[in-house]
Amino acid sequence: MRAVDIIRKKRDAAELTRDEIKFLIQGATRDAIPDYQIAAFLMAVLWRGMSSAELAALTQEMLHSGEVLDLSGLRGMKVDKHSTGGVGDKASLVLAPVVAAAGKNVPLGRKPVLVPMISGRGLGHTGGTLDKLESIPGFNVNLSLSEFRSVLERCGCALIGPTPEIAPADKKLYALRDVTATVESPYLICASIMSKKLAEGIDALVLDVKTGDGAFMKRPEDAEYLAQLMVETGRGMGKKVVALITDMEQPLGRKIGNALELDECLDVLHGAGPPDLRSLCDELAAWMLFLAGRTPDVAEGRALAAEMIESGRARDTFREIIRAQGGDPEVVDDVARLPRAKNLAKVKAERAGFVTKIQCEQVGIASMMLGGGREKKEDVVDPAVGLVIEKKVGEAVEAGSTLCTVHYNSDMRLHEVMELLSTSFTIGDVAPEPAPLVRKIIGAE
Amino acid sequence: MRAVDIIRKKRDAAELTRDEIKFLIQGATRDAIPDYQIAAFLMAVLWRGMSSAELAALTQEMLHSGEVLDLSGLRGMKVDKHSTGGVGDKASLVLAPVVAAAGKNVPLGRKPVLVPMISGRGLGHTGGTLDKLESIPGFNVNLSLSEFRSVLERCGCALIGPTPEIAPADKKLYALRDVTATVESPYLICASIMSKKLAEGIDALVLDVKTGDGAFMKRPEDAEYLAQLMVETGRGMGKKVVALITDMEQPLGRKIGNALELDECLDVLHGAGPPDLRSLCDELAAWMLFLAGRTPDVAEGRALAAEMIESGRARDTFREIIRAQGGDPEVVDDVARLPRAKNLAKVKAERAGFVTKIQCEQVGIASMMLGGGREKKEDVVDPAVGLVIEKKVGEAVEAGSTLCTVHYNSDMRLHEVMELLSTSFTIGDVAPEPAPLVRKIIGAE
Repeated sequence: MRAVDIIRKKRDAAELTRDEIKFLIQGATRDAIPDYQIAAFLMAVLWRGMSSAELAALTQEMLHSGEVLDLSGLRGMKVDKHSTGGVGDKASLVLAPVVAAAGKNVPLGRKPVLVPMISGRGLGHTGGTLDKLESIPGFNVNLSLSEFRSVLERCGCALIGPTPEIAPADKKLYALRDVTATVESPYLICASIMSKKLAEGIDALVLDVKTGDGAFMKRPEDAEYLAQLMVETGRGMGKKVVALITDMEQPLGRKIGNALELDECLDVLHGAGPPDLRSLCDELAAWMLFLAGRTPDVAEGRALAAEMIESGRARDTFREIIRAQGGDPEVVDDVARLPRAKNLAKVKAERAGFVTKIQCEQVGIASMMLGGGREKKEDVVDPAVGLVIEKKVGEAVEAGSTLCTVHYNSDMRLHEVMELLSTSFTIGDVAPEPAPLVRKIIGAE
Repeated sequence: MRAVDIIRKKRDAAELTRDEIKFLIQGATRDAIPDYQIAAFLMAVLWRGMSSAELAALTQEMLHSGEVLDLSGLRGMKVDKHSTGGVGDKASLVLAPVVAAAGKNVPLGRKPVLVPMISGRGLGHTGGTLDKLESIPGFNVNLSLSEFRSVLERCGCALIGPTPEIAPADKKLYALRDVTATVESPYLICASIMSKKLAEGIDALVLDVKTGDGAFMKRPEDAEYLAQLMVETGRGMGKKVVALITDMEQPLGRKIGNALELDECLDVLHGAGPPDLRSLCDELAAWMLFLAGRTPDVAEGRALAAEMIESGRARDTFREIIRAQGGDPEVVDDVARLPRAKNLAKVKAERAGFVTKIQCEQVGIASMMLGGGREKKEDVVDPAVGLVIEKKVGEAVEAGSTLCTVHYNSDMRLHEVMELLSTSFTIGDVAPEPAPLVRKIIGAE
C-alpha cells in the first residue's frame, strides 16, 4: 500500500477502505508517512468529504492510535460533555460537579454516574476549560492517567488536559490542519473530537454544538451537519450521544476571562448567576443524567440537576474535586481568593435604547488581547483579566450606561480593546425578540 | 504574509495575487515554507484550478526561481520543442539536427536558428530524450551551462539534461506533486513545462501534446485544454508558441527502447524509417522553422526540413553535435556501434486478421520491465533492450506472424513481458480507418 495511491483515491472522490485509512493513520502516528502526504490527504478530505463508513474508520483509527481508557473496573456509567467552543462558554465547570454529585449515592434501580473529563485550552477568541480551572490557586490539570482514575473514583469526576497517550494521531493531524487551512472539514472535526472523547472510556456523551457569530460554525446548517456526523459516529461505536445546537450570537453569561468565568460558575452553583448560563447548564446536565441512565427522562434530569445546586451537593463535590487535584477548595465559598485584575475600565453607551446585537467573536478577541486568551498556542494567559458584559442583547440602556467592564492588568493594548468593544455593541430603538438558547436537539428521538 | 492564508484563499476558490504566488514559490525554493504547506497548496490548486493571471504569475515565479539563460548574445532565433511524452516518441532526436541544419547558412532576409534543448529522462511507461542520447557511446548530456552555450553556438544545437540552476522551484514542486497525487493538474503541468522551457532563453516553442492510451492525457479534451494553457502562457510572456495535439493510441514508429529508438531516428535521417515518425518530424520541424522566422510559412518549413534530410545536412549536423558532446559520431552511419541486446523473443499472432488496436501504455510498461525504462527515478536503464512493433494498427497478419520482437538481456521478467505484450495486440476482421497523427493545432491562427 502506498500513501500516494490513497491520496489519489480520495482526490478522485472514491471511498477509502478501512485498511487504507488504517495505513494512513498508523503511518502518520509513527511518522512513517511524511507530513506532506498527510497534508495533501487532509486537503483532499476537505474537498471530497467522507462517507459514514470512512468517517467511522477514521475516528476509530485515530481513537486506537493511542491509549483508550478502560474504566470498566469503576462502577457506574461514564458520561462526558463536549462543546465546540464559544465566548464565555463555561458550562463544563458547572456541569462536572452537578452531574458527579447526582451520580453518587443513587437510589436503587438507578446507575451511579462518573464524569471523566479531558478538556482543552483556549485558542483565538474562544476560551478553554483548562485555563479556567487553572485560575484556582494550586489546581493541577496535569494528572497522570492513574491519578485521573483515582480522583474520578473518589470524587465522581476528574478534570484534566490532553495526555500524550490519548489519540496521538489527532495531535499530529490537528497540528497539520492548523497550518494547511484544513481545519474546517466537518469530517476532520468530527473525527478529532470523537476520537479524543471516546478515548476517555465513556458510555455516553452530550455535545454542545455552538452556532452564531462567536462560534466556530457561524451557520446553523453547518453546526447541524457536524452534530449529525458526531451523533452517528458515536452511536456507530455503541455510545449514547445527543447534540444540542445552541446559540452563540452573544457571549454565554456575562463574564469572559478565566477567573471571571469561574466566579460566574460559582454563582450558578450557589443558585444565582445569569439565567442563560443556568438554563444551558440545566439542559446539558439533564441530558447527561438521562443518557447515563441516572433519570428515566430528561425532565427528571433537569429536576435532579436543580436539586444538586439547591442542596449544595454540587458545591460539595466541586470542593472535593478541587482538593483532590491540589487546588484551594475555599474558592468555592470565597471568590476573593481567585486572581483579580488591578484595573477596571468601562465601555459606555453613546445613546439610549436597547442592545440589539453583540459581536460575539470580537468580544472574544478583546478578551484574548487583554491576555485572557491565546493568539498562538505558546502564549501564556493571565487568569485575572477579562470582561463583564453589563448589558446583554435585549436590555435597555441610557446614554452613558456601562455596556461592558474591562478587567485589565497591562494597558499595552487597552486602547485597541476599548475601540473593539465599543464597536461590538449595537443599540437600537426596539428590543429584539429573544432568541432561544437551544435551537435544536440532534439525536433526541 | 502567511502561507496558511494563501492556502485558505486558494481552497476557497479566490484568485491569488502575484505577490502571494511569489511568496509561496520563493518560500518553497528557499525551504522557508515547509513541504506540508506546499503539498496542501498543490492539492488546493488541483481542486480549484487557476486563472490566467495566476498561471502566468506561477510560471514566471517558477521560471525566475533560478537562472534564465541569456542567449541574446548568440545571433539568431532560438527555438525548441517539448513533448508531453509517449511510447516510442523519439521525434526530438530527428528534429534537433534537422532544425539546427536548416538554421545555418541561411539566405539573405531569413534568420539563423538555434536549438537549445534541455530534456528529461524517462519515467514509467514513457521514454526520455536523455536516455536515448546516452545510448550513443560517450555522449555527455551533463554539460555545464557554459559548455552548453558553446556547443549551441558551434553546432546550432546542444542537448543536455536539467541543471540545478534552471527552475529549482519546479524541481521542488515536481518531487512533491509526484508523491501527493497532484501531478495531473493542467495548471501545474503547464507551469512546470513552461517555466523550464522558457528558462532556456528561447524565442519560440512548438509543443507536442500527446493524447491517447500511451499518453499522459488520455482524453483529447484534456490534451487540448493543457495545450491552450501552455500556448496562452507562453504568448503572454512574449514567446511564439503553437501546440500540436497528436495521437498516442499506438507507439510512434516501430521501435521502443533507447538504442533502438536512436537507430530508428537515424533511419529517418537517412530518408527512410517509418512513415508516421517521419511525418510527425516533418510537421514539428516545419512549425519550428516557421515560428523561428526561417521560412515564411509552414509549407516551406516542411519542404526545408525534407531538404535537410535528403541532402544529408541533418546527418552532418547530428555528427557535429555528437562529436561536440563527446559521443561517437560514427554511429550516424553505422548503427552496429550502438549497444545491442543479446537475445530476441517473438510475440506471435494467434489468428489471422488485422491489428485493430495496440495497448500503448502496456507496451511502454513492457519495455520498462525489460530495463529500458524506470519504475523509480533511481533505476538504471539498459540502453540495448526494447521492442520492435512488427505489425502496427491496420496491418494484416497471418496466424503465427510476429507482432512484436523483444530485445532482452535478462530473462528475469521476460515471461511477464511476453504475457503483457500478447494481451496488448487486438486482432479483428476488418482494418480500422487510419487515425490522423496530428489531431489539431492549437495557436495556428
